[in-house]
Amino acid sequence: MIDLNADLGEGFGRWELTDDTALLASVTSANVACGFHAGDPATMRRVCEQAAERGVRIGAQVSYRDLAGFGRRAMDVPAAELAAEVAYQIGALEVFARAAGSAVSYVKPHGALYNRTVRDSEQAAAVVEGVRLSGAATGDGQPLPVLGLPGSRLHAAAAGAGLPTVDEAFADRGYRPDGTLVPRSEPGAVLTDPDQVIERAVRLARDAEVVASDGQALRMRARSLCVHGDTPDAARLARRVREELTAAGVTVRAFT
Amino acid sequence: MIDLNADLGEGFGRWELTDDTALLASVTSANVACGFHAGDPATMRRVCEQAAERGVRIGAQVSYRDLAGFGRRAMDVPAAELAAEVAYQIGALEVFARAAGSAVSYVKPHGALYNRTVRDSEQAAAVVEGVRLSGAATGDGQPLPVLGLPGSRLHAAAAGAGLPTVDEAFADRGYRPDGTLVPRSEPGAVLTDPDQVIERAVRLARDAEVVASDGQALRMRARSLCVHGDTPDAARLARRVREELTAAGVTVRAFT
Amino acid sequence: MIDLNADLGEGFGRWELTDDTALLASVTSANVACGFHAGDPATMRRVCEQAAERGVRIGAQVSYRDLAGFGRRAMDVPAAELAAEVAYQIGALEVFARAAGSAVSYVKPHGALYNRTVRDSEQAAAVVEGVRLSGAATGDGQPLPVLGLPGSRLHAAAAGAGLPTVDEAFADRGYRPDGTLVPRSEPGAVLTDPDQVIERAVRLARDAEVVASDGQALRMRARSLCVHGDTPDAARLARRVREELTAAGVTVRAFT
Amino acid sequence: MIDLNADLGEGFGRWELTDDTALLASVTSANVACGFHAGDPATMRRVCEQAAERGVRIGAQVSYRDLAGFGRRAMDVPAAELAAEVAYQIGALEVFARAAGSAVSYVKPHGALYNRTVRDSEQAAAVVEGVRLSGAATGDGQPLPVLGLPGSRLHAAAAGAGLPTVDEAFADRGYRPDGTLVPRSEPGAVLTDPDQVIERAVRLARDAEVVASDGQALRMRARSLCVHGDTPDAARLARRVREELTAAGVTVRAFT
Repeated sequence: MIDLNADLGEGFGRWELTDDTALLASVTSANVACGFHAGDPATMRRVCEQAAERGVRIGAQVSYRDLAGFGRRAMDVPAAELAAEVAYQIGALEVFARAAGSAVSYVKPHGALYNRTVRDSEQAAAVVEGVRLSGAATGDGQPLPVLGLPGSRLHAAAAGAGLPTVDEAFADRGYRPDGTLVPRSEPGAVLTDPDQVIERAVRLARDAEVVASDGQALRMRARSLCVHGDTPDAARLARRVREELTAAGVTVRAFT
Repeated sequence: MIDLNADLGEGFGRWELTDDTALLASVTSANVACGFHAGDPATMRRVCEQAAERGVRIGAQVSYRDLAGFGRRAMDVPAAELAAEVAYQIGALEVFARAAGSAVSYVKPHGALYNRTVRDSEQAAAVVEGVRLSGAATGDGQPLPVLGLPGSRLHAAAAGAGLPTVDEAFADRGYRPDGTLVPRSEPGAVLTDPDQVIERAVRLARDAEVVASDGQALRMRARSLCVHGDTPDAARLARRVREELTAAGVTVRAFT
Repeated sequence: MIDLNADLGEGFGRWELTDDTALLASVTSANVACGFHAGDPATMRRVCEQAAERGVRIGAQVSYRDLAGFGRRAMDVPAAELAAEVAYQIGALEVFARAAGSAVSYVKPHGALYNRTVRDSEQAAAVVEGVRLSGAATGDGQPLPVLGLPGSRLHAAAAGAGLPTVDEAFADRGYRPDGTLVPRSEPGAVLTDPDQVIERAVRLARDAEVVASDGQALRMRARSLCVHGDTPDAARLARRVREELTAAGVTVRAFT
Repeated sequence: MIDLNADLGEGFGRWELTDDTALLASVTSANVACGFHAGDPATMRRVCEQAAERGVRIGAQVSYRDLAGFGRRAMDVPAAELAAEVAYQIGALEVFARAAGSAVSYVKPHGALYNRTVRDSEQAAAVVEGVRLSGAATGDGQPLPVLGLPGSRLHAAAAGAGLPTVDEAFADRGYRPDGTLVPRSEPGAVLTDPDQVIERAVRLARDAEVVASDGQALRMRARSLCVHGDTPDAARLARRVREELTAAGVTVRAFT
């Protein structure tokens, strides 16, 4: 059993990026942009409505405040500000999720914030503090789970604060023998061959394994697979991943 | 019995404007800026915490998206976008209000959006739609009351949609014989003499009357008085208004 | 002889919109977005370099400050602020034009500012004041020409201030019998059939005529034709317009 | 002989920060904010006009794009983007300087960009590339000098690219024995006693010396002294510094 997550709603005003309607037909969890790196309110509303109609789980894809850089530039944001910014974004999304009859049910940092909180304990703690603040906002007082990289500082901070964590893996990213991702600046960081991506997705989901850059099979237990949404063929690839997972006997379902 | 409201949290990052701590000692309702014309997340959090501590009611001061113009420039925002923007702001504030043990309990448009929705039915309806969307966000499903000018399109739209409305009056603004405000471009629009402001505040609260620009006493029934927060002596004037109201036998208390 | 102009560089950071490279192969004047409705600095630089290489004239496409609305929402910006904002944008673009060995050689308002200054004398005067301010920036002290609608307040204000004006026409917009554009809210506002657009382009350029919505031929003398750049087939249509104009004996050349 | 520089125009729209008029009475070089961390176009215009009237030299205070953080948060901006952003800001300011009969005659990075380019060679080179791009914009093709810390990577990069550099010192900052500034996170980073600041200013200007944190006098040859502009008493302190420098026989004059 595996969850499929993708980034959605990453346009802004006149600009479109992700084919939200098509992606929602394949994924089980939608990481919805909350306005800081992408995602205007009208788009957030529409994506939440479509996700709720299709029974796709809604998550807050929180980011540094950086429209010009699409949230891909690491920023030295002081912890108190970062925590408040994370909470702000979750609250804003919550309105649209609720209005659509659903709820924000997890949080995933975007771009540079995702990468930074893999290793930066202070910013990881700030994100967790922001999620904790927003816990009150869901109405039931329960903290939201955090979706991220196994072994990350973010997951350590979340666990330390009593927040559930959900491990994710990437079918289209290279892994180093130690289980970390091959940096984008190195060869082999991103896989572009659809067949290879699908093969890795199935192996990750069914066998909890991925072949690392040294050719060795690596243990990689993930409850969610991330498929990228901002490439031209993203929607088609997501659909094929889902079909092949199903054909391989894997149940594709939102994590609980 | 009367409510005292003021705009709070109208700084942004390095920039400060309103003396939030001092104003919270006098007002009973805080119109908290939500990030579109002013108000960064850390400030929103702090103001909500202080308001909750003092038992001051928290309202969402929603605005056009216009930091450069402080929300004072009318914008032709399409209705669907405006509704989503209003809901977004309310949701963002809700997180901080809840985390502080309180809640967003009313909505007041800011600046140009306030003025525009006095006469523009379409934008008034869009604001109400935004408030309605956010109703789900408060958890109890109840729509939030709208604070504004008696006779405004905003109040008409709110009433039509089943939202409570709260009439407010201004002790420091000139009124025309028909009960509308003297436009800021005309003489007598803003009163700056503290004694005169206080006298008008008491008469408004106790007698439901205000002297219009033609010298005639005008019937003006308001449940809330707005005191401006962004002038140098705003906090002192707010304190004096409250003291004199109390001395005149008026109970200063948040509207219900 | 006719000039062909199109809006270019209308992406922002991660988001792309106009196919700048393809459009630059067909147009003779590039209206480059300057960062207020679209256009990040790196894109501005690239478009200026490509325009200079191809000998395409560079113009400043100035806008309201409105990334979220792509500059399509009219704003009540006070004249002094608007003038300064226009000058700011021209100056920013000037750097990249000069560095590419070219210069900003005209100004065209974008979107809502374009439409507003057709009829609003105050904002038209503010735009002209902004252009006049920037005149100093070109180094030779000469004011820049303004590209816009014949009969507009903008052109009247420009002429009054001693700025050259350049009339433009639209091959893909409907005209009313009085020579104004059919508003986008009405049927017949935008023509989507490429053959019809090309036919009108040729007639406008060769015969100074356009068929109005009542079927009558209308006198329409323009020195520049605007082709839209933000539709999927924009680049192909621009190329065909240019080819057919040339085939019809019209010289396509930047206005002087 | 010494130059006095201060950051000016650091408000934004409704928000004010620096007392520009008062500071311009004392300083000889004005680091004018260019809109990325502070500084709206109307303010930039006004400050340039006042500086030109008083014969104060105008410099471009360039920053990361970060209004919410006032440019104080380091950002991993890719070099090509950073260079273009720097050029954009210089060009925008140039319009107002020229319109006032003056010119942008130097560049100084602000806040986190200032600190980062002390040690980060890549970003230092990007800033220099931005300045070089803008050289074309000044009309005479001469590159602008860069104002910064002696020994910084920024100055090394500037010198390598043929740009003049101007060393500055701080009368109100603590120095370590190696000549670097005491970080703001450590005690002794900022001096708040006006008499002490003035004493250090005179010693820096007259004797090219500053007492470091270990009590030893340190050689510190600077052509410009920075006085901070964003504290409540900044204008008064700047005036006193200037008076005492003059009284000590130091000529206060813009660097050449």
